Amino acid sequence: MALTDLPAEWIEEETHPADIAAHLSEMEPDEAWPLMKALPLDVQAEVFGYLHPETQGPLIDKMSRKQVSALITEMDADDRADVFNRLSEEQQEKLMPGLAQVERENIRKLAAYEEGTAGAIMTSDYVTLSPDLTAKRAIEQLRHEAPDKETIYRAYVVDAERRLIGTVRLQELILAEPSTPISELMEEDPIHVLVDEDQEQVARMIARYDIIAIPVVDHEHHLVGIVTHDDAIDTLEEEATEDFQKLGASGAIGQSVRRAGISMLYRARIGWLVLLVFGNLLSGFGIAYFEDTIAAHLALIFFLPLLIASGGNAGSQASTLMVRAMATGDVRSKDWARLLGREALVSLLLGLSMAVAVSGLGFFRGGPEIAAVVAMSMVCIVIVGSLIGMSLPFILSRFNLDPATASAPLVTSIADATGVVIYFSIATLVLFT
Amino acid sequence: MALTDLPAEWIEEETHPADIAAHLSEMEPDEAWPLMKALPLDVQAEVFGYLHPETQGPLIDKMSRKQVSALITEMDADDRADVFNRLSEEQQEKLMPGLAQVERENIRKLAAYEEGTAGAIMTSDYVTLSPDLTAKRAIEQLRHEAPDKETIYRAYVVDAERRLIGTVRLQELILAEPSTPISELMEEDPIHVLVDEDQEQVARMIARYDIIAIPVVDHEHHLVGIVTHDDAIDTLEEEATEDFQKLGASGAIGQSVRRAGISMLYRARIGWLVLLVFGNLLSGFGIAYFEDTIAAHLALIFFLPLLIASGGNAGSQASTLMVRAMATGDVRSKDWARLLGREALVSLLLGLSMAVAVSGLGFFRGGPEIAAVVAMSMVCIVIVGSLIGMSLPFILSRFNLDPATASAPLVTSIADATGVVIYFSIATLVLFT
Repeated sequence: MALTDLPAEWIEEETHPADIAAHLSEMEPDEAWPLMKALPLDVQAEVFGYLHPETQGPLIDKMSRKQVSALITEMDADDRADVFNRLSEEQQEKLMPGLAQVERENIRKLAAYEEGTAGAIMTSDYVTLSPDLTAKRAIEQLRHEAPDKETIYRAYVVDAERRLIGTVRLQELILAEPSTPISELMEEDPIHVLVDEDQEQVARMIARYDIIAIPVVDHEHHLVGIVTHDDAIDTLEEEATEDFQKLGASGAIGQSVRRAGISMLYRARIGWLVLLVFGNLLSGFGIAYFEDTIAAHLALIFFLPLLIASGGNAGSQASTLMVRAMATGDVRSKDWARLLGREALVSLLLGLSMAVAVSGLGFFRGGPEIAAVVAMSMVCIVIVGSLIGMSLPFILSRFNLDPATASAPLVTSIADATGVVIYFSIATLVLFT
Repeated sequence: MALTDLPAEWIEEETHPADIAAHLSEMEPDEAWPLMKALPLDVQAEVFGYLHPETQGPLIDKMSRKQVSALITEMDADDRADVFNRLSEEQQEKLMPGLAQVERENIRKLAAYEEGTAGAIMTSDYVTLSPDLTAKRAIEQLRHEAPDKETIYRAYVVDAERRLIGTVRLQELILAEPSTPISELMEEDPIHVLVDEDQEQVARMIARYDIIAIPVVDHEHHLVGIVTHDDAIDTLEEEATEDFQKLGASGAIGQSVRRAGISMLYRARIGWLVLLVFGNLLSGFGIAYFEDTIAAHLALIFFLPLLIASGGNAGSQASTLMVRAMATGDVRSKDWARLLGREALVSLLLGLSMAVAVSGLGFFRGGPEIAAVVAMSMVCIVIVGSLIGMSLPFILSRFNLDPATASAPLVTSIADATGVVIYFSIATLVLFT
């Protein structure tokens, strides 16, 4: 199969634009653009909307002014604004003159909202109805406007000042007597979000209420857009990916990990690694402080990695559980005190079980005194590590930092340093008195 | 506000069932049931569908046979089967006799599919059309059947044997000439999934193609259900939560973390903690093996936590990035070799940077030889830790295990043991030759 045959096949077999996009993004821009150009313009626009930003940029560089304008005009309003936001200034200038006045304004408006807000992910592809229309006239209006709209299953009812007063489902319009006014069919005061609401909150509301789209209003309650279910899924997936990366102590990669470059990955990872080195120095200083104890009982060193790692592991478990529960809204800041009590109890049980598991070994390698030191240390270290890991996300959130900053490596570093001090303090107390 | 006033307020203010459910789940079953009973039956059913399974069970115990049957009959087909699956055998027996024959069969059918498959999350609330209907007759049929259906925006076209042959959107029916046959309006051979497909894959397809619902067929291509966008969001969120918990080295909690009991949390966490103790013993043996080296140069101990932690941290970063990228489909098994090369390069740069950061300290605390040992060890440990962390998810996936099992604590344990051996081997080589 020659590469140049692909568009014909794609069209004949009605390949989904998302799948075409996946193929194109595996290619170099030089190969991809001729293939894409051979597609009908409406398919091009859909395919382009599915491409990663890293692929969109180089493709635009291959296009002429006219081609860019034609493509962008064909796209959905929200995809269009997203593309525009990611273009270089040079590329933006290439694009703007070719667009109609109304599209230029629409892009400027949608592109003006801050990243991460409802405004940045909303679309202007929806239908508004006046409350005094009849069901029959409303259906006619939908028929007229709908083919271009991303979603027509729910229309939004606005007053003369474009303030949101209700919503009505296509289903209800069809079922109703043709002469019924919209004001009688609509659901009043619908669920909505403010335009500067955090995008993750917006997505969670769509998930919570099982709705297809949520209307977005400005501070005067004017309808300015809607956020649809597909953007909600994408947002939740992106936010989860970002939290994963933070929990692994990387910066957010913000793009495909498979295609991320070496310098991008280096920059995302070096910061925390170096910071944590200085955190781990504390453990070193702790050990240095107890050098006499260690020199007198070298057997103690054997248990060091095991004990401090256990504190870090228990702490990582606790912090990960909390970070995710806070992200999904399962746990909120006010739950801290109650959950702290539960964590104390759980970690006591965990610590006791592990103390039993290692004390035999302590006896075997160092006698009864070492066994006692190891067992006592294990209980204390697991409890302290768990409480630190469990509390850190709450503390970060209190200071308006992302709870996901409480990464496993950070919790481990703190638990390690605490563990060194606990272990050798108990050892010094038991073995030298 | 007296608690007994709540249902009246909920009804007057048209509180969303999801919000009512959130309130009820904060209460004891003894308080919650009287409030719920006061709601109209259709609201009760919706509210019940939004409740967590942990709240549903105790509530059912409060109800009479008749109340349970009335409630369950009113629910959506997929929610009904979910509830049924989670009931105790006793509760299931309480429920069945009160249901109509057709509902009993429907429940048995939906409840029979294995957890985690498309069959388990699909619903039977959809409309099927015959290809020889006209658009006008199709709209009439939708009018007749639609009010009960979860989604009518897309109807499914099936042949006489109920095999899926196409889909048609409500929008197209309305826009079409009334006499056009469905067979001309429908989109043929629509995207679909098999009933035993993994639920996460199904959800990812809905996300990928930006669709509201995906039809589910059996192995003879008979339409057996649809999975809707709201179940796709819930599935992706649940799978992400499970991966977070695994990456934190917990078992999957499978319920609200806030409300999880002490014994549940203990059981989810103790397994990995004890397993990792034995992993960490390896580090202890490593140290014991090099006791002479340590006794001769006690200054080496100061750098031990710092060096082995750095390997674990770099490894945790690498494994977390891979686990999430594999879960979202960004990275696949076949990418391993190529990404290994990139990881080697990135980790070399990371290791060199960190060697610079600590070698000054090594010089200051132990002289030039110790500085050289620490710097060399850092580079090797960071590279080895990164390559282990990056490869482990691929290896697990090769053995059909969940890549998310490559938790930060597991990677840290392996990297720690390797780090001890690398550090003291280099130290022995440099300092004793």
